[in-house]
Amino acid sequence: MERLEKQMQFIIEVDKVKNIFRQTYLADGNRKENDAEHSWHLALMAVLLKEYSNEEVSLEKVIPMVLIHDLVEIDAGDTYAYDEAGAATKEIRERKAAERIFGLLPEDQRSWFRQLWEEFEAYETPEAKFAHVLDNCQPLLLNDASGGRSWAEHGVKKSQIYKRNQHTSEGSGEIWEYMKKLVDKHIRLGNVIDE
Amino acid sequence: MERLEKQMQFIIEVDKVKNIFRQTYLADGNRKENDAEHSWHLALMAVLLKEYSNEEVSLEKVIPMVLIHDLVEIDAGDTYAYDEAGAATKEIRERKAAERIFGLLPEDQRSWFRQLWEEFEAYETPEAKFAHVLDNCQPLLLNDASGGRSWAEHGVKKSQIYKRNQHTSEGSGEIWEYMKKLVDKHIRLGNVIDE
Repeated sequence: MERLEKQMQFIIEVDKVKNIFRQTYLADGNRKENDAEHSWHLALMAVLLKEYSNEEVSLEKVIPMVLIHDLVEIDAGDTYAYDEAGAATKEIRERKAAERIFGLLPEDQRSWFRQLWEEFEAYETPEAKFAHVLDNCQPLLLNDASGGRSWAEHGVKKSQIYKRNQHTSEGSGEIWEYMKKLVDKHIRLGNVIDE
Repeated sequence: MERLEKQMQFIIEVDKVKNIFRQTYLADGNRKENDAEHSWHLALMAVLLKEYSNEEVSLEKVIPMVLIHDLVEIDAGDTYAYDEAGAATKEIRERKAAERIFGLLPEDQRSWFRQLWEEFEAYETPEAKFAHVLDNCQPLLLNDASGGRSWAEHGVKKSQIYKRNQHTSEGSGEIWEYMKKLVDKHIRLGNVIDE
């Protein structure tokens, strides 16, 4: 029973990720979304969009990866995609968080989740690249649906979006083409700055 | 591009499930949770607790199943577990919703999701039984963590919880044992009525 108890404690602890809010508005524009909602959306997208991955990927890896990729933010907080000051300390904050949060699990699952998270962060395997495609595409879809409000509020530039997505085409050429069209649309609408 | 466009439209449409609120409070008791958060939690639990399923289950089926099991509530609304009047019309409302919502997808994915949802509702396969274990266990964990508030507010009886969970032990004997202990604890605390 000790093993199940540890797993249940972890399951309750990570409930906190439902209170970590991101800068992205929901599609209806009424409020910002949280990490649990975001992660649910990515997992569903992984199921539906797997066919667009440049390389064959295993959902047995991609799905747990996207389900847990933001759990470190329970301790480290959300670092906005275009927050350069936050980015400087992000890695240290998140590593410490991974230690504590995954450390609640039984040894085998602790190592597995830790490895999955490290693999996501390292951005090298086909699964990590595809997970990042989803992680970058989903807020873009929501930003488009909510009228580009989050971009406009933060004065986001095309160059910032392209820099963040510099490896997106390695994960999925087709999805990146789709994303670029959305960015172009919001440049025309004046929500994204093309300097 | 038409196929990807349909998939993206579906992905945006189902964003609405983030606004379907349930009767369960988050672990911290501060607000009720929504269907997207709930579904994220179930998918993560599927990954962690698979070993407790009585029968071998495929996560390739369980995970998409739990990710989509509540999408019909976008049109049909959430029917509280112990709302008998709502239960009477639930099936008709949800079938109509399934028709519209899954109908947004390309044909192959529409049939697949529809079948997965039907399989969940039919409660017969090992995957459906295990998905229901998770779907029933997760609110119980949150109710416990939040001090039994949702049970107390609704005057929930032990017999109602047991009736809802009459097949839970078929999915996982061990998890049902764990759940029964939590119910007993909240009978002692006076949050669940043992008539």
